Amino acid sequence: MDNFEFFSPTRFVFGRGAESKTGELVRKYGGTKVLLHFGGGSIKKSGVYDKVVASLVAAGLEYIPLGGVQPNPRSGLVREGIALCRKEGIDFVLAVGGGSVIDSSKAIAFGTLYDGDFADFYFGKDVKRPTPVPKALPIGTVLTIAAAGSEGSGNSIITLEPDMLKRGATGEALRPSFSVLNPEFTFTLPPYQTACGAVDMFAHVVERYFTPTKDVDITDELCEGVMRTIVAASVKALANPTDYAARANLMWAGTVAHNNVCGVGRVQDWSSHGIEHELSALYDCAHGAGLAVVMPAWMQYVKDADIARFARFAAKVFDVQSGDPAAMAEEGIRRYRAWMRQLKMPTTFAELGAREEDIPALVAKLGLGDGRLGSFMPLSGDDVANILHSCCKE
Amino acid sequence: MDNFEFFSPTRFVFGRGAESKTGELVRKYGGTKVLLHFGGGSIKKSGVYDKVVASLVAAGLEYIPLGGVQPNPRSGLVREGIALCRKEGIDFVLAVGGGSVIDSSKAIAFGTLYDGDFADFYFGKDVKRPTPVPKALPIGTVLTIAAAGSEGSGNSIITLEPDMLKRGATGEALRPSFSVLNPEFTFTLPPYQTACGAVDMFAHVVERYFTPTKDVDITDELCEGVMRTIVAASVKALANPTDYAARANLMWAGTVAHNNVCGVGRVQDWSSHGIEHELSALYDCAHGAGLAVVMPAWMQYVKDADIARFARFAAKVFDVQSGDPAAMAEEGIRRYRAWMRQLKMPTTFAELGAREEDIPALVAKLGLGDGRLGSFMPLSGDDVANILHSCCKE
Repeated sequence: MDNFEFFSPTRFVFGRGAESKTGELVRKYGGTKVLLHFGGGSIKKSGVYDKVVASLVAAGLEYIPLGGVQPNPRSGLVREGIALCRKEGIDFVLAVGGGSVIDSSKAIAFGTLYDGDFADFYFGKDVKRPTPVPKALPIGTVLTIAAAGSEGSGNSIITLEPDMLKRGATGEALRPSFSVLNPEFTFTLPPYQTACGAVDMFAHVVERYFTPTKDVDITDELCEGVMRTIVAASVKALANPTDYAARANLMWAGTVAHNNVCGVGRVQDWSSHGIEHELSALYDCAHGAGLAVVMPAWMQYVKDADIARFARFAAKVFDVQSGDPAAMAEEGIRRYRAWMRQLKMPTTFAELGAREEDIPALVAKLGLGDGRLGSFMPLSGDDVANILHSCCKE
Repeated sequence: MDNFEFFSPTRFVFGRGAESKTGELVRKYGGTKVLLHFGGGSIKKSGVYDKVVASLVAAGLEYIPLGGVQPNPRSGLVREGIALCRKEGIDFVLAVGGGSVIDSSKAIAFGTLYDGDFADFYFGKDVKRPTPVPKALPIGTVLTIAAAGSEGSGNSIITLEPDMLKRGATGEALRPSFSVLNPEFTFTLPPYQTACGAVDMFAHVVERYFTPTKDVDITDELCEGVMRTIVAASVKALANPTDYAARANLMWAGTVAHNNVCGVGRVQDWSSHGIEHELSALYDCAHGAGLAVVMPAWMQYVKDADIARFARFAAKVFDVQSGDPAAMAEEGIRRYRAWMRQLKMPTTFAELGAREEDIPALVAKLGLGDGRLGSFMPLSGDDVANILHSCCKE
């Protein structure tokens, strides 16, 4: 087991009606004037917006709304949010939405206090930038999509315009002070978004599970339990969108999948995420959909680096009976793909709207140079190209 | 799934050499003058004391040592610590030891800032006292025994003199700001203490796992994974005390077992702990040893309240093959006892040094009156007596 630091200070307030505590939570963490950041109109239609506003007003808080966050959130709106926070003297950023809204809120929260360009802290494998991010305004979230895990993480991903580079920043200052999680808010999600969310949170565990580090039994056990839960709960939630237990298990699994309790004590991989970010930046596809295409292709490509690991994955997560490790590994990947097909996720480049001829450009944007991506099997640019070409086959 | 709040803000710094960061961590959390609280001489013999002091000195911190914490820590030393902190103007309490030292440190940390008697906040099921505890001095820990989980919990258990009532206090102010966990510090633990620790942390999961709440699949999965890890790692650690991986898995499992990630979304039980506290208060036996006697007897007594739950426990934790639920439940409890015997834990009242004739007094001390203990099957005083009588048989 490797040395590690585990720090997950966010207060998670979970369950039916939890949003009624939003105002008092903002007060508890020092907020008096709130940026209320959100996406499109869905939270207004669903009534979530009104409930949150009612809680803020009941706590005697001022708020300034800023909507319009798109999936794959853009730097332009972040800059607008930073200007607004400075102009209005805002001291708390409240995200009401999914991962994109939360990531945009995190960028605004530290960008408001940072003298330079917030984008300085968003970097790829190619560029060394200052890290971690400096201090930020306190951040709270009211989660409406179980997926990204940003409600409990210290990360933010923004698509930097005009080059549409999807890049990440990290730092303890980005961890929300509190996150309100009401599973009922996910009842009305379109099936496609529910599915994308399940695929994304599953991938967050996979990136931590496939590691060269040995003997981290406790973390392996937690990873496998969370992955089994995601598979079972996602199928139930799609079959019956108002199944509270399924929605609740899926929502909490999404948080646990990414607050790093499933990652401690080992080197992590994150190459599928690295590759996928270039796809969703270029084609503006959903992150979960991109992962549904890239991650099984990555698995096929790297499995021989530790076939026993893949056999264990197959046995523990997809109940593949014991046998020849190579055959087990193959069957595990097949069942992983089958689960995603059951969720009606794309599994090929074409279904994603991606083009094989763009592969050289996608690889170039990763900016690997002579470097490598990931740790389970460190990938060269050629390896990434091979993986992407394999995504183009049926 | 029930509504819940999950809040585990402690910074865990885990691994070889982690203690070298103690001084800088105390500084980070505002300490300038430290109460260095510990138990007997073992940390001096093992060199842990000198390493921690070196780190404090390197960070330019003043410190006042206060040793002498006994297992089942007493109120007398807590009062001495409070007086010392006030006299010396101490602003940080550092526990170097196991659960007893940490619990004593927590009591000192809030007692120093509280005008009345710190014991006001320690109460049993019978007495209503103010809760949660008010503000406390910041607390840090350097853990030397994997067991109690106090390094990541908001609880403290103290034996109140002169009546020797073992009582608990709770509150967010009791959560350590940081905990340093170096598994190597447990290499030299006597086998009996290693075993008591494993039994204790396993019991922390059991108290959360046996619940009347349904549909908390994610928490069930986490519980089962942690229990399997504890069983496997404890056997390895006893066979080879310097097996780093086994010690590391056991240490982190002890923390995860009790920071409540294994407990969220459901009603918990805690009746075995309630019963055991009376045993260790009266006979001064090790908490883990008391649990080894009480908990399987509790299981036998309550299992019919939800036999399917016990069958699942048997299957998932002790690999009992499927079959008749009653037979599976029985076999699961048998294997649980067999694991503890393998660890050379006591399994009867007599081995614990307890006497059957004390049972009425033990039940009376619980102070249940017409009330009930626990939630899986709420126990009357007569039920508790029956459980304790069953502990007297071979």
